[in-house]
Amino acid sequence: MIKVLVIGAGAIGAFYGSLLAKAGAEVSVVCRSDYDQVKQHGFIIDSHPLGRWNFTPAQVLKNTADFKGTTDYVLLCTKVIPTLDRVVLIRPAVAENTAIVFIQNGVEIEQEMLDAFPNNELVSGLAFICCNRVGPGEIVHLAYGRLALGNLPNGISDKTAQLCELFNQSGIECKATEDIVTGRWQKCVWNAPFNPLSVLSGGLPTLDILQTQESFVRSIMQEVCSIAAASGHALPDDIVNINIEHTYAMPPYKTSMLLDYENGQPMETEAILGNALRAAQRLGVAAPHLESVYALMKLRELKLTIEKIERG
Amino acid sequence: MIKVLVIGAGAIGAFYGSLLAKAGAEVSVVCRSDYDQVKQHGFIIDSHPLGRWNFTPAQVLKNTADFKGTTDYVLLCTKVIPTLDRVVLIRPAVAENTAIVFIQNGVEIEQEMLDAFPNNELVSGLAFICCNRVGPGEIVHLAYGRLALGNLPNGISDKTAQLCELFNQSGIECKATEDIVTGRWQKCVWNAPFNPLSVLSGGLPTLDILQTQESFVRSIMQEVCSIAAASGHALPDDIVNINIEHTYAMPPYKTSMLLDYENGQPMETEAILGNALRAAQRLGVAAPHLESVYALMKLRELKLTIEKIERG
Repeated sequence: MIKVLVIGAGAIGAFYGSLLAKAGAEVSVVCRSDYDQVKQHGFIIDSHPLGRWNFTPAQVLKNTADFKGTTDYVLLCTKVIPTLDRVVLIRPAVAENTAIVFIQNGVEIEQEMLDAFPNNELVSGLAFICCNRVGPGEIVHLAYGRLALGNLPNGISDKTAQLCELFNQSGIECKATEDIVTGRWQKCVWNAPFNPLSVLSGGLPTLDILQTQESFVRSIMQEVCSIAAASGHALPDDIVNINIEHTYAMPPYKTSMLLDYENGQPMETEAILGNALRAAQRLGVAAPHLESVYALMKLRELKLTIEKIERG
Repeated sequence: MIKVLVIGAGAIGAFYGSLLAKAGAEVSVVCRSDYDQVKQHGFIIDSHPLGRWNFTPAQVLKNTADFKGTTDYVLLCTKVIPTLDRVVLIRPAVAENTAIVFIQNGVEIEQEMLDAFPNNELVSGLAFICCNRVGPGEIVHLAYGRLALGNLPNGISDKTAQLCELFNQSGIECKATEDIVTGRWQKCVWNAPFNPLSVLSGGLPTLDILQTQESFVRSIMQEVCSIAAASGHALPDDIVNINIEHTYAMPPYKTSMLLDYENGQPMETEAILGNALRAAQRLGVAAPHLESVYALMKLRELKLTIEKIERG
């Protein structure tokens, strides 16, 4: 039986973990915040496209070190934020044959994993999903859900193909891709404008942003394309147009960064904007619009920190 | 006796009007929001550097059209915002020999006045002051107060020199300048970064902004210098450095735009950023950082408008 350990069982981790359990894998979870609830009652997954089900993990753990046995896959689904050390978090569960899969946001988040686990299979994953935690152990999957998986530095291993197969069996589309790093930049084309603009505007949904500041959005997208190309991951020529058209067609949408902001949670500013900008600087690519948006996010975060300290 | 009509007697208008009254001019005011209070009791000016005094205007008016007689100077001190037509506001008080003086923020705010009043003397003014309305008819002058006045398109007329003299007699420094339009760009070097960044950060004072994002602040300042130069108003080479040093030396300061934002008042986004950016586009000057900050201010304003509508 295929064994999976989900680390960071928030909305994304619990949802995708539950799908693998549905498809027949033995799925355990490390979940901190909802530990008591999940230990006693498991998760309730309420998926608008796929129905409602309970997910009872094989092991429910507070810490990765408590995991008993070995796992075929570690599925890392935390946010990528500076205060959370991804390597330390997963290391206790990584054995010789463990494939490390991370379904996370951001660009250039691969190297620290490659450095820390040079002898393990590393699989980078992207989730295109609208999915929220609505209460302890309670996840609502609103729409979408497509996954893209691919090995690092590139290619598709048997284990990756097997994981894709499991996801596809469970009812969600999962595509294995030869060049997942390019896929990561591709996702950043959308994330880099809409995530910070939704926060800095004070909470506008995507459609309002696009309707009033399309040319600004395009400038940021174009800069991400230039950085991606300079880093050896050229994106399709029409990607900016496609993203714009696609966003006009979407229902008005609150970005993940805006949800984090509204819930007082840390935001993935560094993973999405900071890393892209550091790549730009390293590669000598001008990215003044991205730079502005990043600087403003850092100021907004500083103000939030000051407010937290003042509240005591 | 020299006659002055102050139009827009908020903090700035009431303060400078009261100084001219102290110096012996006959000063009337048009003030809408505090009309009843001011009509009955005049203004109380509480100046930390200059002391406390009452200012009883000669005429207190709700509308410019109610003004009786003719005035030597119209002193326009409103904010410059798209919903307020400055020409319409002052026209009823502008007679043949009336000098029109505007003490207002922003760049490229001259042309509509030149177009509307081609035969009047036009005086452009800049106030470097920290001054707030703290209650109906009650103004607190916290610090600074220097004025710069100059004729349009340039030069210093006798009437301008006379007005300067009155201000200097009253205890505030007023300098007549041959090239006030350049002075306006010079002030914009500071306003263009600090005003919007204080708002978009959610309320940071100037020092926090500078300490964490100095290079971003410098980029915006440099773009304003480039636009000013392209429009024929080259600024001194060291102006960015001087502004940076000066701001480090200032006590942490809430910008006027931040105060407007916090008080739910319209902000001078167009006068300061929009006009600078339109000049950049007209003159073919690249200003991507300024463009970003402007776009984000427009998004923030859109969100504020939506919130107002939702509150009903």
